[in-house]
Amino acid sequence: MTHPYLSDHVHLNDEGTAVVILDQTQIPNRTVYLTLETAQQMFDAIHQLQVRGAPCIGICAAYDLYVLAQQIDPQTAAPDFLSQLNQQADYLASSRPTAVNLRWALDRMLETVARCAGQADRLAILHQECIAIHEEDIAMCRSIAEYGLSLIKNGDGILTHCNAGPLATSRYGTALGPLFLGHERGMDFHVFADETRPLLQGARLTSYELSRAGIDVTLICDNMASIVMKNGWVQACFVGCDRVAANGDTANKIGTSGVAILAKHYGIPFYVLGPTSTIDLHCASGADIPIELRDPGEIREKFYTEPMALPEISCYNPAFDVTDHTLISGIVTEYGICRAPYTQSLRAVFEKKYAGLSYGMPEKEDEK
Amino acid sequence: MTHPYLSDHVHLNDEGTAVVILDQTQIPNRTVYLTLETAQQMFDAIHQLQVRGAPCIGICAAYDLYVLAQQIDPQTAAPDFLSQLNQQADYLASSRPTAVNLRWALDRMLETVARCAGQADRLAILHQECIAIHEEDIAMCRSIAEYGLSLIKNGDGILTHCNAGPLATSRYGTALGPLFLGHERGMDFHVFADETRPLLQGARLTSYELSRAGIDVTLICDNMASIVMKNGWVQACFVGCDRVAANGDTANKIGTSGVAILAKHYGIPFYVLGPTSTIDLHCASGADIPIELRDPGEIREKFYTEPMALPEISCYNPAFDVTDHTLISGIVTEYGICRAPYTQSLRAVFEKKYAGLSYGMPEKEDEK
Repeated sequence: MTHPYLSDHVHLNDEGTAVVILDQTQIPNRTVYLTLETAQQMFDAIHQLQVRGAPCIGICAAYDLYVLAQQIDPQTAAPDFLSQLNQQADYLASSRPTAVNLRWALDRMLETVARCAGQADRLAILHQECIAIHEEDIAMCRSIAEYGLSLIKNGDGILTHCNAGPLATSRYGTALGPLFLGHERGMDFHVFADETRPLLQGARLTSYELSRAGIDVTLICDNMASIVMKNGWVQACFVGCDRVAANGDTANKIGTSGVAILAKHYGIPFYVLGPTSTIDLHCASGADIPIELRDPGEIREKFYTEPMALPEISCYNPAFDVTDHTLISGIVTEYGICRAPYTQSLRAVFEKKYAGLSYGMPEKEDEK
Repeated sequence: MTHPYLSDHVHLNDEGTAVVILDQTQIPNRTVYLTLETAQQMFDAIHQLQVRGAPCIGICAAYDLYVLAQQIDPQTAAPDFLSQLNQQADYLASSRPTAVNLRWALDRMLETVARCAGQADRLAILHQECIAIHEEDIAMCRSIAEYGLSLIKNGDGILTHCNAGPLATSRYGTALGPLFLGHERGMDFHVFADETRPLLQGARLTSYELSRAGIDVTLICDNMASIVMKNGWVQACFVGCDRVAANGDTANKIGTSGVAILAKHYGIPFYVLGPTSTIDLHCASGADIPIELRDPGEIREKFYTEPMALPEISCYNPAFDVTDHTLISGIVTEYGICRAPYTQSLRAVFEKKYAGLSYGMPEKEDEK
């Protein structure tokens, strides 16, 4: 069963020589697809958030690397080929330093091709791997959606921040996955979408995705999360993640930590949803996660008919913040729901993963 | 000593027949003054936030009523005159239901003129009263600034939400008063100004006022307050208020309650600053304060070159929220700093006020 409007928004062109993406900066007013052929175009697409969402960036970067590999002289010997591909990967990885999936997907592509000796096979192997990364993401999102759905009940109000839906991933999304899946099964939810300044992914993408799927959504400014919770309208918070440290500290879109603190104050459970590719066991805690600082112009003038603050006004514009693990009720992965202490439960999830176990949530009727 | 750029932004025209206001919706890009002559113009100016800030709305409404009184036939007998003026006051009061100063200033004008029997004197009495309301606000802000300054020290980082500076009041402002006063005395502060969606008073007004006065200010999106506090950059939060209930619950710009919850989480003191005219002892608690709901278009499209959400997306747009008194470290009035339990300390402040006591903070050297 495919979702009516969730055709893949990141894919290879028919010839397999370029990456085609839906330009997310144009949503909701226009549907524009971009064709990426050069490393510069690919870097810019990620950096300018034309493609965004941690899992989606990973998928896109894998396709990117496959396309760039085709541009290397076919006669190039393996060490040189790998060295050139490594350089391209480093360049792409530098487009957004916080999201771990980006580096993860690039490394996976590099490791796969490094294991293959033959010049003849390497492009085919890279092609296979980027398709696999994409297909695995679909399956992971599906599993995350199943686990997440077990945390809420029909009629619940759910608050989300930024966008961790289909546009941020493939198919169901992470944080929004349970809502899309539950909706398919006839459940009703009321979603409160934080607009998510400064880039307004909640307004532009989340409210658009949910509304088009027929899911009841109310858009609010970020600073309205407190009153909405106080009104008793929110039974759970669902957010995505850009990087989860070994102790459960989670980097996600700026403002997420504030939502978690409010949820704790009002006694509302706060869940982080994301694939294991977002979990970085090499990061001991949130203190080790680099936080990307972006252009002050995004706060002062972007989107506006005229500046809202004078050009001489200083702005602090971090793209992410870290939510302390003590504020998180659970981290929902494709292998199950991790609970505190996260140092143990996250490691346990990786043991399942490395053991090659299936995700463990039985497929439901509608999938058969 | 007058502040270099804080000429009165609400005043009567030279003939005293109209109210002149600085259109705050045009700041920071243009300096435009509006002349208000009809009740409709006055209502619109308040409703559309061309004049805003609880104390400032009170001052403006007092001038408004004086101007409207001149438009009543001079031959009208006292009961009829009062009845007509009452109607005009009710109409103006309906422009913004949450701010108590608006109704307070109008009632004060009505009560003053009701006590005067003579037809000849009534306009003179109204004129005197609106000038008194304005001058008292200047003195109140000055006293609030003195008390507030006693709560912080040189070099502190102060986070503020919305705009409670000179533009919201007269001269020093309430929440920003201590910063302007301290700056005059050579102290340095680092102010973090929440941009304050959806109407961006923090970006448009607060950062403008502070920056023009030479006070170090960094503009942030509302959802960045958490990371700024976590970074250790904030030693106190200063916010204004639109209505304070008898138990200390405080209505202020939407998002204020969230800032207070974050401040409590991070162990940062959170202060509300406002004149006693903002305290409503008839309101037992925040549950009795009506919350103004505004147009969804302010969230979806206002200020933007194109809509950020589709027109069919529902928005919830409360203009205010209520901060629970348990989150407030102190309420700073012109008569001193109230601490919990607020039911007692706020009543004590009114006892001082009704006893006609002076504000009690000695004037400093630079005033002599």
